[in-house]
Amino acid sequence: MTGSEKSLAKGSPAPGPVSEETIRVYSMRFCPYAQRARLVLAAKGIKHEVININLKNKPDWFIEKSPFGLVPSLETSSGQVIYESPIVCDYLDEVYPGKKLTPADPFQKAQQKMIVEHFSKISTLFYKILLAKKNNEDVSGVKAEVQEKLVKLDEILAKQNGLFFGGSDVSMVDYMIWPWFERLIIFDSKDCLNKTPHIDKWYQQMLQDPAVKATYIEPDLLLGFFKLYSQNDVEACDYGL
Amino acid sequence: MTGSEKSLAKGSPAPGPVSEETIRVYSMRFCPYAQRARLVLAAKGIKHEVININLKNKPDWFIEKSPFGLVPSLETSSGQVIYESPIVCDYLDEVYPGKKLTPADPFQKAQQKMIVEHFSKISTLFYKILLAKKNNEDVSGVKAEVQEKLVKLDEILAKQNGLFFGGSDVSMVDYMIWPWFERLIIFDSKDCLNKTPHIDKWYQQMLQDPAVKATYIEPDLLLGFFKLYSQNDVEACDYGL
Repeated sequence: MTGSEKSLAKGSPAPGPVSEETIRVYSMRFCPYAQRARLVLAAKGIKHEVININLKNKPDWFIEKSPFGLVPSLETSSGQVIYESPIVCDYLDEVYPGKKLTPADPFQKAQQKMIVEHFSKISTLFYKILLAKKNNEDVSGVKAEVQEKLVKLDEILAKQNGLFFGGSDVSMVDYMIWPWFERLIIFDSKDCLNKTPHIDKWYQQMLQDPAVKATYIEPDLLLGFFKLYSQNDVEACDYGL
Repeated sequence: MTGSEKSLAKGSPAPGPVSEETIRVYSMRFCPYAQRARLVLAAKGIKHEVININLKNKPDWFIEKSPFGLVPSLETSSGQVIYESPIVCDYLDEVYPGKKLTPADPFQKAQQKMIVEHFSKISTLFYKILLAKKNNEDVSGVKAEVQEKLVKLDEILAKQNGLFFGGSDVSMVDYMIWPWFERLIIFDSKDCLNKTPHIDKWYQQMLQDPAVKATYIEPDLLLGFFKLYSQNDVEACDYGL
């Protein structure tokens, strides 16, 4: 299962146990939080299977496995379940060999997590933009706030010793924030990059990253999904399949 | 500075650099998030100084140091600043020798962080209770929700191999959730423990923990603070000094 299978919805039979040499990720093709996990799985070359969940019509067995009913959730061959995207990503990075995405130095690690916290204030605003647009309200105020916070994030990036948020290489922090940049078109915020030269350069670099390429969703697919999603279409998550 | 000095407010001069053999924590005596950090500092026996910040009237230099203006924030002798309580606590546990509070096993570590996530849904409800009471609204609905979630947390605790949330010893997860249990009286939720026998036992055990004892605030002090805090009294955080 590569992640391009249709989602499992309420009433679907529960999948069997996870085989020994792999790990399972419960995902939704368009979910930015789930993409965090898929980026880490791809970047580390971890053998995995993807089961897509219909988040608007969740199977009962999924909520039993993962009590918040959220993606991403991991399931191991011994039946352990791990949820919440930062916990999932840290677990994958710690358990699996290959490139370590998190710095070993405690302060550098803390710095990466603080940048993710900064970014979380921006992603919260993205959802405010969506809500305002849905209610036909003026979005200029929220967009100005996004712009202001992105400029601050650009200043943080400018101080790094390299093109990426963790320095000269792609690392965990970049994967933790990338999914929302891939979705800027949905948040009507693509133009924000005009005033953030360092983020703009980072964005172009990230597009060349193999894990980003492996999980990338074309803008027309994103927009198609989002149109159905906004209409509360229960099949939105299977758009394009 | 032991943490019982009056807080620094807007207009106060910035404290000097941190001396080499110590670490500084910016705190507020009654803040549960700051207590998380103070519990870890106490449990690991880390030499530290405490500077209390008046969160209702913050010094400009504090916001320059710690951009969200939140406590706890750490400052090291080399001028590094670390904020956000889970990041602060993980940093302290990683950098300092002594008892490791976080399990080395990645799944056990993930489990602790998932329990903290579960608890965060409860602490959010505690603040809903405060808001409802302030607005003279009925709190029975929210309190029932708290009770329901605490019963689920009790079930999680019952499955542990020991009296604590991480097993037979106090560990990071216990310190991350304890401050809200110490404050149950403020959230009008002390009676909730009647229906959660395992948490009730844990609560009694925690009261005996040296780090809990070292940071414990007597109920009458908490209530006195909270009364002033509810009245938006700018000196609330110095209550009792």
